[in-house]
Amino acid sequence: MPTYRAPVEDVLFLLTDVFQIERYSNLPGFAEAPPDVIAAILREAARFCEEVVQPLNRVGDAHGCVRHDDGRVTTPPGFKEAFAQYREGGWMGLSAPAEFGGQALPHTLTVVMNEFLCSANMAFAMYPGLTFGAIAALVAHASPELKAKFLPKMIAGHWTGTMNLTEPHCGTDLGLLRTKAVPQPDGTYRITGTKIFISAGEHDLAENIVHLVLARIEGAPEGTRGLSLFVVPKRLVNPDGTLGGANGVSCGSIEEKMGIHGNATCVMNYDGATGWLVGEANRGLAAMFVMMNEARLGVGVQGLALSEVAYQNAAAYAKERLQGRALTGAKFPDRTADPLIVHPDVRRMLLTVRAFNEAARALVLWTALKGDVAHRTADETTRQSAEDHLGLMTPVIKGVLTDQGFANTVMAQQVFGGHGYITENGMEQFVRDARIAMIYEGTNGIQALDLVGRKLPRDGGRAVTAFFNEVAGFVKQHAGDDGLRPYVAPLEGALAHLQQATLWFMQNAVKAPDNAGAGATDYMHLFGLVALGYMWALIAKAARDRLASGADAAADRLKAKLVAGRFFMERMLPESAAHLARIQAGAASVMELPAEAF
Amino acid sequence: MPTYRAPVEDVLFLLTDVFQIERYSNLPGFAEAPPDVIAAILREAARFCEEVVQPLNRVGDAHGCVRHDDGRVTTPPGFKEAFAQYREGGWMGLSAPAEFGGQALPHTLTVVMNEFLCSANMAFAMYPGLTFGAIAALVAHASPELKAKFLPKMIAGHWTGTMNLTEPHCGTDLGLLRTKAVPQPDGTYRITGTKIFISAGEHDLAENIVHLVLARIEGAPEGTRGLSLFVVPKRLVNPDGTLGGANGVSCGSIEEKMGIHGNATCVMNYDGATGWLVGEANRGLAAMFVMMNEARLGVGVQGLALSEVAYQNAAAYAKERLQGRALTGAKFPDRTADPLIVHPDVRRMLLTVRAFNEAARALVLWTALKGDVAHRTADETTRQSAEDHLGLMTPVIKGVLTDQGFANTVMAQQVFGGHGYITENGMEQFVRDARIAMIYEGTNGIQALDLVGRKLPRDGGRAVTAFFNEVAGFVKQHAGDDGLRPYVAPLEGALAHLQQATLWFMQNAVKAPDNAGAGATDYMHLFGLVALGYMWALIAKAARDRLASGADAAADRLKAKLVAGRFFMERMLPESAAHLARIQAGAASVMELPAEAF
Repeated sequence: MPTYRAPVEDVLFLLTDVFQIERYSNLPGFAEAPPDVIAAILREAARFCEEVVQPLNRVGDAHGCVRHDDGRVTTPPGFKEAFAQYREGGWMGLSAPAEFGGQALPHTLTVVMNEFLCSANMAFAMYPGLTFGAIAALVAHASPELKAKFLPKMIAGHWTGTMNLTEPHCGTDLGLLRTKAVPQPDGTYRITGTKIFISAGEHDLAENIVHLVLARIEGAPEGTRGLSLFVVPKRLVNPDGTLGGANGVSCGSIEEKMGIHGNATCVMNYDGATGWLVGEANRGLAAMFVMMNEARLGVGVQGLALSEVAYQNAAAYAKERLQGRALTGAKFPDRTADPLIVHPDVRRMLLTVRAFNEAARALVLWTALKGDVAHRTADETTRQSAEDHLGLMTPVIKGVLTDQGFANTVMAQQVFGGHGYITENGMEQFVRDARIAMIYEGTNGIQALDLVGRKLPRDGGRAVTAFFNEVAGFVKQHAGDDGLRPYVAPLEGALAHLQQATLWFMQNAVKAPDNAGAGATDYMHLFGLVALGYMWALIAKAARDRLASGADAAADRLKAKLVAGRFFMERMLPESAAHLARIQAGAASVMELPAEAF
Repeated sequence: MPTYRAPVEDVLFLLTDVFQIERYSNLPGFAEAPPDVIAAILREAARFCEEVVQPLNRVGDAHGCVRHDDGRVTTPPGFKEAFAQYREGGWMGLSAPAEFGGQALPHTLTVVMNEFLCSANMAFAMYPGLTFGAIAALVAHASPELKAKFLPKMIAGHWTGTMNLTEPHCGTDLGLLRTKAVPQPDGTYRITGTKIFISAGEHDLAENIVHLVLARIEGAPEGTRGLSLFVVPKRLVNPDGTLGGANGVSCGSIEEKMGIHGNATCVMNYDGATGWLVGEANRGLAAMFVMMNEARLGVGVQGLALSEVAYQNAAAYAKERLQGRALTGAKFPDRTADPLIVHPDVRRMLLTVRAFNEAARALVLWTALKGDVAHRTADETTRQSAEDHLGLMTPVIKGVLTDQGFANTVMAQQVFGGHGYITENGMEQFVRDARIAMIYEGTNGIQALDLVGRKLPRDGGRAVTAFFNEVAGFVKQHAGDDGLRPYVAPLEGALAHLQQATLWFMQNAVKAPDNAGAGATDYMHLFGLVALGYMWALIAKAARDRLASGADAAADRLKAKLVAGRFFMERMLPESAAHLARIQAGAASVMELPAEAF
């Protein structure tokens, strides 16, 4: 059975040493979270995830969710009790606005909690995860009345939320959607249509479920310009806030799928259900994107989270399982064989996963802090630059962390040999669960197009220029530092590749957009390598600074970071050249064949 | 529901145009298989796989195998009837020696049939697949009496075979195994022990199951030098060839696992079972390796086979599913949206899979033909060179085709978006089934070590030198051919990387074997890239030659090959530089951390 230990010390090192969170104490909510408070919160988060949520992970996979004939859905044994503890722990409202009952602490802490929760049990984590997205959309776009009606209950964890976008004939292409909304004299709408792939669409964890539904008001334009966002509760809410009768929405079936069995993926039938418009009519896509961006970062964190828990279990197995002898002679001659960890190829796999995890966590926290800045600073220049970062990094984090996170679960499974293929050892569940993160909230191909087609050119390339300048500035500043050279020199090379690729798009993709489309996925991964490489450079610098400052109980852990960072630079960053070559190959061989030749 | 169409025309093109199978007509069995006979055999193989076996693939996954309390195992509905048709079709004996009832046709045809069968239904294909390995071991090492007793029934498909190596505490490290064999006065042995992960260990498809079991004769040396191979039938065989009573072997349980649910993966308990020694005592490992090499090539074919069927279904979906518009403007303005196939990133995924499949199939057929030469030629020099090729390419085919084959099933699944995650669409089954091929018959890390540690240095590097010379010779011969330049020039570059990597090992890994261990997997993949790149160069040449020879009904298909080959050269071969960089990084950062730091 797999185990999990939340990487609390790692997170604290990143927040305090690498990103110096004290610098943010002028932002609302940050002063209330000095390092010792953060540490206490994260230790409690860790305990809850390790002791309450993780033990339900295999159970959830084996039992799955059950839909009853009356449309009710039962979650796996233990989920309801665990969610009650989650609610009572106040985790749903940790960073939510105080005016609706939240604690208004940095959102970054919620992001950390989500990593721990997904590592422990991704299917479980999705119930609150979707709720965060729904809360964000309501906070940003709902009327004061709707906010007052729904947010306090959601933030308290009494009600959960969902996102209803996909329909049987359209996922990515939302312009095709058909769910229709008919205006009523009382200002509400009657919503009718079928939505599919609705995670947490129906369950028994909460008293009510608040569906956010994309639909087309009767007579609205075709395409995405005719879409509006509605809030459609499972049960209607009386004026006094108590629950009323059932609304016209029900779960038609739940999908049989590859993984995340503990989360109910529902077909939702809307049959004249009462809905309230969120934001302006025909501006649903904009409102929905608030929810979507929140969700995309959350999905990126899922990739990291599964990579982390898979690493931990693979490392433990490699230290324990005896098999073969070291290539340089027996390391444990008194045992029947050496443990797997003596073998270079096993270490290569473990270090590949780990060198990703530590840098990916840094990238997530860096971006989460920017998110806090974007939402909380009073200074417009600071806000804009943080927003730029957020927009630029969202598709990178979603696409790269889930592609690599999935690949890492496969690699960790490989360390187990045949035992990794056996269900009860849990490694194959990590693979199956991680797989969905590459697909939902916009496939990774869509993330790559978002990066190349929208985020790069936006505002004359302001966001990407700022990122390049920051990395180049770091490289220049530390060019003379011998100790940092193993990190800085490779980073400089990879940055040059990324800049060449960017230039190539500017020169070749404007007139021939297929060149951008054919290189988009490679560009996204090249971008991710540079971003992760920059994170390693920052980590290496912080680790060296702290080691230089004298005796440290964490010295071994810090030295290990310097090694893992070197591994990243030597073994993972060289991929940047291959990405550049593929981008510069252009679209010719990709587009040449007629469709019928496939 | 997924569909499958066996790539018969592709195979015929490879056999006749690329590898000119007529050149082999002086070998026993080849004269009996002129092109029209081969075509007829392959068309019948295709029909059987498409119509009989493929429809059972989802059924097999959903039902799995069931073990009853008495130890009997029932295979999924339809498997028994399909296996009866397989037997009656004579497929088991297609290339088996005539003296035991086989048809003695080229083994290459059996390899092709195995690809089709695995594409159609991998779990089903494993029942005959394991039998081929057992037949090969008995043909090579058993006494005439044992051959006469077992081979005719196995070759006729009445009895199936298994390989019993792994035990709970040892997979890769066979030296640790404990199953014991006690000599009896009548020359037989009593076998006692527990074997795990025994594919097709128990089932209801055949009258008898012939287990080949690795065990240690009482008093034999420890480690692999004390291992012997035994044949242990499920039911004893009377002197007249009829079936006798049950032997002391039974299925203790079947594993719950990630995929290949239609194949029973058994824990086999040997409780004083009667066994007969195969080959010499304490030389079991050598006898076992015959079976193992056969099986490793077969597993490589599984990687290709799943990649192929996944490609076909993804391509069909991409042409049919309407979603979004082409980046260059609507291609089908009269429809609500364009099909996925207009999108460069979707084409990139499809072409990545396809450019691998066509070259991988060529590599398999090239190597299968060498296998036929090795086993059938009378000329010692020719035999040796064919054996060299076989030994060198076996780990490459096993490791590269299964790693890439798995990655390709994931990529094909991605084309389906959310629908790829849903069980009934079948794409996620391909992923789960393909995953095991990277693990069994020696993990891919072991394949890489076999390549670097044994196959490279063997006979003073004779095998690898011959391969380098052949590729370099082709490059030199066609250096002046403008039409082939897009294939030959990149191949030359990748070959140079491979040669540099080989030199680096010679200079750095002899004294420090961890340098070989740390670079082995990258070397295997670099080798695979060059081998596949060489295949594309051969295919491009053959396609151009045939196109130049005038009108051809297959012209579109041949032209498509030229495009797919260019895609391979532009987009996949550039990875060679990254592999070289990782190899040359050496073992330092890999080995530096103490075990407890993981």
